[in-house]
Amino acid sequence: MQAEIIAIGDEILIGQVIDTNSAFIAKELNKIGVSVYQIRAVQDERSHILHALEAAENHADIIILTGGFGPTKDDITKKTIVEYFDDGLVRNATVTEHIKQLWKNYINQIPSQVNLNQALVPSKAQVLMNRYGSAPGMWINKNGRVFISLPGVPYEMKALMVNEVISKLQSTYKFPYILHKTIITYGLGESNLAARIEAWEDALPNDIKLAYLPNFGKVRLRLSAKGKDRVAIETEMQRQVELLLPLIADVFVGYEENGSLEAIIGKRLTDLGKTLATAESCTGGKIAESLTAIAGASNYFKGSVVSYATQAKIDVLHISEDLIKAHSVVSAQVVEAMATNVLQLFHTDYAIATTGNAGPTKGDSDAEVGTVFIAIATKTGVYSKQFNFGNHRAKVINKAVNKALEMLQKEILKKRDC
Amino acid sequence: MQAEIIAIGDEILIGQVIDTNSAFIAKELNKIGVSVYQIRAVQDERSHILHALEAAENHADIIILTGGFGPTKDDITKKTIVEYFDDGLVRNATVTEHIKQLWKNYINQIPSQVNLNQALVPSKAQVLMNRYGSAPGMWINKNGRVFISLPGVPYEMKALMVNEVISKLQSTYKFPYILHKTIITYGLGESNLAARIEAWEDALPNDIKLAYLPNFGKVRLRLSAKGKDRVAIETEMQRQVELLLPLIADVFVGYEENGSLEAIIGKRLTDLGKTLATAESCTGGKIAESLTAIAGASNYFKGSVVSYATQAKIDVLHISEDLIKAHSVVSAQVVEAMATNVLQLFHTDYAIATTGNAGPTKGDSDAEVGTVFIAIATKTGVYSKQFNFGNHRAKVINKAVNKALEMLQKEILKKRDC
Repeated sequence: MQAEIIAIGDEILIGQVIDTNSAFIAKELNKIGVSVYQIRAVQDERSHILHALEAAENHADIIILTGGFGPTKDDITKKTIVEYFDDGLVRNATVTEHIKQLWKNYINQIPSQVNLNQALVPSKAQVLMNRYGSAPGMWINKNGRVFISLPGVPYEMKALMVNEVISKLQSTYKFPYILHKTIITYGLGESNLAARIEAWEDALPNDIKLAYLPNFGKVRLRLSAKGKDRVAIETEMQRQVELLLPLIADVFVGYEENGSLEAIIGKRLTDLGKTLATAESCTGGKIAESLTAIAGASNYFKGSVVSYATQAKIDVLHISEDLIKAHSVVSAQVVEAMATNVLQLFHTDYAIATTGNAGPTKGDSDAEVGTVFIAIATKTGVYSKQFNFGNHRAKVINKAVNKALEMLQKEILKKRDC
Repeated sequence: MQAEIIAIGDEILIGQVIDTNSAFIAKELNKIGVSVYQIRAVQDERSHILHALEAAENHADIIILTGGFGPTKDDITKKTIVEYFDDGLVRNATVTEHIKQLWKNYINQIPSQVNLNQALVPSKAQVLMNRYGSAPGMWINKNGRVFISLPGVPYEMKALMVNEVISKLQSTYKFPYILHKTIITYGLGESNLAARIEAWEDALPNDIKLAYLPNFGKVRLRLSAKGKDRVAIETEMQRQVELLLPLIADVFVGYEENGSLEAIIGKRLTDLGKTLATAESCTGGKIAESLTAIAGASNYFKGSVVSYATQAKIDVLHISEDLIKAHSVVSAQVVEAMATNVLQLFHTDYAIATTGNAGPTKGDSDAEVGTVFIAIATKTGVYSKQFNFGNHRAKVINKAVNKALEMLQKEILKKRDC
């Protein structure tokens, strides 16, 4: 079975909004064994949506639309669905009641007629309740295919996918088994990694596909298999992973299915009962932000000093002014002092520190744009490394964040081996 | 003239990568007056790419492909282009030399034959030099249309778009004039905003389109106009904006064309010669990270204390333990003390502080999930507000970041009026 995703909205086509919805929907579908044939972003426009719906019928059994709902969109998706299915609108009592409740609880007003009209749904549609918003999801069967429309607000769409769509698809169809295993590696470029595992890759069986996903110094290796025999697929996947791991032991970090690197680090720190703080200059708080995006971060993450200005390194992190004068603010000595001091300040077991120049111009030091020092401190010592992450500001920041997490991960693994 | 974007990569269709490239390309094309008809994400697969190329010819004069290059993708895009244009590959001397230089400067190795083969290009293609990577961009004319292929690595693609593609398009074609004006508002929901400006919207001339772009408490209003007479378009747009502004004076923040809210704040602080620090609990450093994503942030942003743990509020921000015990860590009293203390610690003119519970479970306080206090401190005083941003972790964090920046922006505007 194949799916197609149609994302509706001029804001996507003028580049003002990045279509994150389609990626989320695709990921959820893949998890249950549904492949996505393609994703198409179209205009808020009747004929374009109709054309996309017709074309999707040629390739897909499951067609999911998002966006184009709400008063300010003139409910273009709903109107077009009514036309496509030769249907009419009826008022749904449950949705009407839900809208009244939402307005009472969160807006403290009586909903307007425009708001209440979101309870009008095509008569052929089954309603999927949207607990976070007023526009319901809809499920319509036609010619052995199912058409599902979802609101475009990401957290409303996500809740509908997870709570309604997936289980309804699973109870309606029997899907093949899809297994993805994504191995996170750090520190080796894509082509060097490819060269190293070439013989293993060439010997992969036909039903296992390999993809390389490089991103700012991190390369993920995604293995995918699909079929009817779950046990056979799992066994073969396991066998291949066991053949692969010894080849990449020095750069292996973990499995993405266990969560992002931040989540893997968080789980390991929780298991070890250890804590962490960061002192960030050029990364500007992004390491802290990445760590605290994970629920439960308060178990191990104590906080950060973002000492962006040189004076803040002196005032808040108590780095000696002489040290900065002697070695410059972008130096191994300063980054190590930052890590050591922040560890003491927050009473943690581990600390990460960064200092560098993300560009585009030179900052408080004479360091070349792209120069970054990263330090890891523990209760027993501190060390640092120097990098050059190029001349593109966002790239320098992202590479520094990834590299810092990689260094911390290695340090924590070391601890575990003791 | 219309364009179509074809993003190539299985990683997009399984939801492992969000297609940010298409949004960037769409934005750049719109700036020079090229509308994007649609965006299509397709598989790393010959027949699917061929089908997308054929279909695109029906709607688009400019067809841009990204992704599907490199040794581990088996250069599927290049192979398919050769087939589609009935062409063959030739080795490009300039690209060969560039690859050797890149490997010498950054990898300190001699490039392998696989790497050097990125210099093989279709004989009908004009090469667009990729200064950041080894896969060149390509420009091919056919039947009055142009096909442009770009590497999938975002920063390589972006540099090629900005430095090569846009100027070449402008020197090749004559485009209509497109003008977008995007007004950023904070603090009023989409439907309330729509109700308030309904009469103005209904009276808009046909050649100006309005779109609402809501996002975590911020609603952007995008006005778009397109035509041949630049002066007439600019005059009419200006007139409409002048009619609109008095209706939304209390929620108006600025124009997106002047940059994001962070950039607008940064410019204003620079103009005023004022400085800023943040003390962040539930936002985990995301305010600092957003501010420092802007080049030149070191002119006004001094740093942040991310006091995630309660103890860090005591140890690093010097909040009195008694105050926390008396009022709880999520309270107006504590957030105001955080703002005041961080302002003193970093010697700044302004400070933002946040404390709250982003969920999913209750943290160090008894505050309901979603409760956030935000404070703004200046040298002469401090004030705070309480919010409930709902029960979705990422939403709570993002809404708190947006609201904090909105409050700061209002405070800075006040200053200016004095």
